Amino acid sequence: MRAPPNAVDAAIAALRAQLGDRVTTSDSERDIHSHDESWHRPHRPDAVAFPASTEEVAQIVRTCAAHGVPVVAYGTGTALEGGAIPEHGGVVVNLRRLDRILRVSADDLDATVEAGVTHQTLNARVRDLGLFFPIDPGADASLGGMAATRASGTNAVRYGTMRENVLGLTVVLADGRIVRTAGRARKSSAGYDLTRLFVGSEGTLGIITEVTVRLAGVPEAIAAAVCSFDSLAGAVDTVIRTIQLGVPVARIELLDDVQMDAVNRYSGLAYPVKDTLFLEFHGSPTSVREDAEQVQQLAAEHGGAAFRWADGHEERRALWAARHDVAYANKALRPGCGLWATDVCVPVSRLAECILETKRDLRESVLLAPLVGHVGDGNFHLAFLVRRDDPREVAEAERLHERLVRRALAMDGTCTGEHGIGTGKMRFLTAEFGEAVDVMRAIKRALDPRGILNPGKVLPPAPTSPGSGLVPPPRPLT
Amino acid sequence: MRAPPNAVDAAIAALRAQLGDRVTTSDSERDIHSHDESWHRPHRPDAVAFPASTEEVAQIVRTCAAHGVPVVAYGTGTALEGGAIPEHGGVVVNLRRLDRILRVSADDLDATVEAGVTHQTLNARVRDLGLFFPIDPGADASLGGMAATRASGTNAVRYGTMRENVLGLTVVLADGRIVRTAGRARKSSAGYDLTRLFVGSEGTLGIITEVTVRLAGVPEAIAAAVCSFDSLAGAVDTVIRTIQLGVPVARIELLDDVQMDAVNRYSGLAYPVKDTLFLEFHGSPTSVREDAEQVQQLAAEHGGAAFRWADGHEERRALWAARHDVAYANKALRPGCGLWATDVCVPVSRLAECILETKRDLRESVLLAPLVGHVGDGNFHLAFLVRRDDPREVAEAERLHERLVRRALAMDGTCTGEHGIGTGKMRFLTAEFGEAVDVMRAIKRALDPRGILNPGKVLPPAPTSPGSGLVPPPRPLT
Repeated sequence: MRAPPNAVDAAIAALRAQLGDRVTTSDSERDIHSHDESWHRPHRPDAVAFPASTEEVAQIVRTCAAHGVPVVAYGTGTALEGGAIPEHGGVVVNLRRLDRILRVSADDLDATVEAGVTHQTLNARVRDLGLFFPIDPGADASLGGMAATRASGTNAVRYGTMRENVLGLTVVLADGRIVRTAGRARKSSAGYDLTRLFVGSEGTLGIITEVTVRLAGVPEAIAAAVCSFDSLAGAVDTVIRTIQLGVPVARIELLDDVQMDAVNRYSGLAYPVKDTLFLEFHGSPTSVREDAEQVQQLAAEHGGAAFRWADGHEERRALWAARHDVAYANKALRPGCGLWATDVCVPVSRLAECILETKRDLRESVLLAPLVGHVGDGNFHLAFLVRRDDPREVAEAERLHERLVRRALAMDGTCTGEHGIGTGKMRFLTAEFGEAVDVMRAIKRALDPRGILNPGKVLPPAPTSPGSGLVPPPRPLT
Repeated sequence: MRAPPNAVDAAIAALRAQLGDRVTTSDSERDIHSHDESWHRPHRPDAVAFPASTEEVAQIVRTCAAHGVPVVAYGTGTALEGGAIPEHGGVVVNLRRLDRILRVSADDLDATVEAGVTHQTLNARVRDLGLFFPIDPGADASLGGMAATRASGTNAVRYGTMRENVLGLTVVLADGRIVRTAGRARKSSAGYDLTRLFVGSEGTLGIITEVTVRLAGVPEAIAAAVCSFDSLAGAVDTVIRTIQLGVPVARIELLDDVQMDAVNRYSGLAYPVKDTLFLEFHGSPTSVREDAEQVQQLAAEHGGAAFRWADGHEERRALWAARHDVAYANKALRPGCGLWATDVCVPVSRLAECILETKRDLRESVLLAPLVGHVGDGNFHLAFLVRRDDPREVAEAERLHERLVRRALAMDGTCTGEHGIGTGKMRFLTAEFGEAVDVMRAIKRALDPRGILNPGKVLPPAPTSPGSGLVPPPRPLT
């Protein structure tokens, strides 16, 4: 969809009446909100709005709905598949002013925040209570954006993803109504699981304005270590055995030799340039020791060196900062290149095969693409370093990307473990889900019949052939 | 909805052509499939079908859809809120012949089973691999039914519920199409979370025919114990502190004094007739000892006696058998009575208050209602023992039930932690979710526009006033 210019103008005029100078059509703001951190082509919105409350978000949606103008929610702009790029123009709703931590309960180990609060902000607030929020994508993303993308990160192997850690949401629907998807009970069998439906819906079914999340107690003991391997297969097999034995590692991250080289250069470190695991153990001093010994033994059996421990808070922080800075490290590896970051996830039994085949592709290619992964979940990332102005490089990245995703799907995996569909993975959705995509389309049509919420995302265009009764032909847009 | 008799006859004739004597209209089978284990009024279906494959389920649904006849999925008939009672007649689809364990992966810690496989059958199969499936509702329910009800049980405090343990489903849609909701990756950000949408939908959005579940490794060490308390508050506060400290108990179950009396009588045991916790710890020998010591200390601080250990597999089995037999124990407590089992779930910080207020209600009532709970989740059950032929007793149970549910909702809890909505909790759905119920209705209408799937369940009738654009008026039934 794309709204006609007069409808856009009328919507913006109405928004100005509501929000004053908190709606803007300035070129600079439209540029800032034309892209995320992905490889994908930017597109400017017609306007950017900065609401300060759920009610204001609802007003904006009602106004845009009345004029048939697209509404695109925007958190920190750190997404990696184009999910927040306003492909069809319209109004970008920047949620950064929804920045209040509404409540924290140390007794229930949960917190409710407005959608614009980032995970680092939440963590700074709950640290003194002996608590932390475990989901940590690389960027300091907003909780609303993380919920919308079903994000995860390094701790997911132990603590789960946003799917497991969101207890409930406040959501503005396509008609501007405000709903709450759940109370605060840890479990419920009441009704359809709307929380999980909106988590991962990337702003296409509603705009998330408040998030209630689980918190975890800071473990009594934490130990982090780095372990280099003689072979990639050895590193991956160590991970697979660790998971199969049920060792409750908190983090188990793989960085391949290319990635380690980039990390060393960027962060001024001197790790061996080898396939490497970064590990963290949480628990009591005894259980941490037991867990670490068990994994060290597995590593040794698979060609791993002795653990290099990061003792103390500061050393641990430096270790994980280096891990979280891989995107910057990769950009620095080949200056002037674009970074095309992608991720897939496979059953852990197929992980070695999937990674080794992918590395073989890379060895036979001219392109450089460091590999890093939350391998305990079967999830790994490639970052293609590509000169945008070289069509051969772009074509080669496309070819390798296609092979990577098809390989993961053939192994009963998924085309994205944590980055989302956005526009970048849209064409793989049907390959992954088959006719279940029609169910997704039916839900989209039921909740957003006019298609104003983040149009052009997640769901590939329906085939033109007449469908079954489940999926009526698209309605005309107004 | 209720289909006209000629439509039902035509549907049954067509089903006979497809299934032969695996569709029946015999009084005995219709009686068997007229009820579950709940208090709720039975209702006979017009026919019962026994498909043996997903494709046959799809055929049945297509036939019933063509004739506008209700289709009600049925697992083991052990539900507690009337979810499988064919309120509007039609065809009950008994899934017990879908009894194949399709695959087990010790490497990926998962298994795929047909919907009729029960959790005990699955556990018997995977035990020799050193694995177990942790979700254990009291009854030996089918995995399909457990998924449809979003069931949980005693292990949920550590291992989660069906929400967390289902990786993917095969579902027959209302038009007979067969979809698969997910692959086997441990996490995914691809598209809408259809798995979680069908989990807990109680057969109203589709019929689950295959379930892929996570398995867990049998822990190296297991220890179980019983601990009696001087007061209910002491027992509940011990639970609350245990959860708040993050001790990873595998089970922490509360049985009040009334329940303990019933258990002693029924299972021939001699526990003190006091408010009591049943506990289980999983881990390494060291971590189990540490965890148990920590909880024992908390218990001692709250008036708990020394742990009475159930050593060895057989003692543990007997302990948990007594716990799982509470429904029978309760029935035996007042012979001739009906058992009205209900459950609620609240944030754990409100658990003591919720239970103590509920017990006050019970002390002031003529009715007997043992209390038992998966209290680590904030979830507890009451079992009202009621003479069906005494209207005063029925009215009193209704009054107490109403107060219980309203109390849980006022504490930001849920009207059911694990039993489902069925018909029994339908009238509380709007109180719990407000306008979000309209979102559920819109989804129901999108996926089952003619309302043939388990009609009369989960969603209360829509108010007659004209709704917003989100919820168009109901379509006429054909």
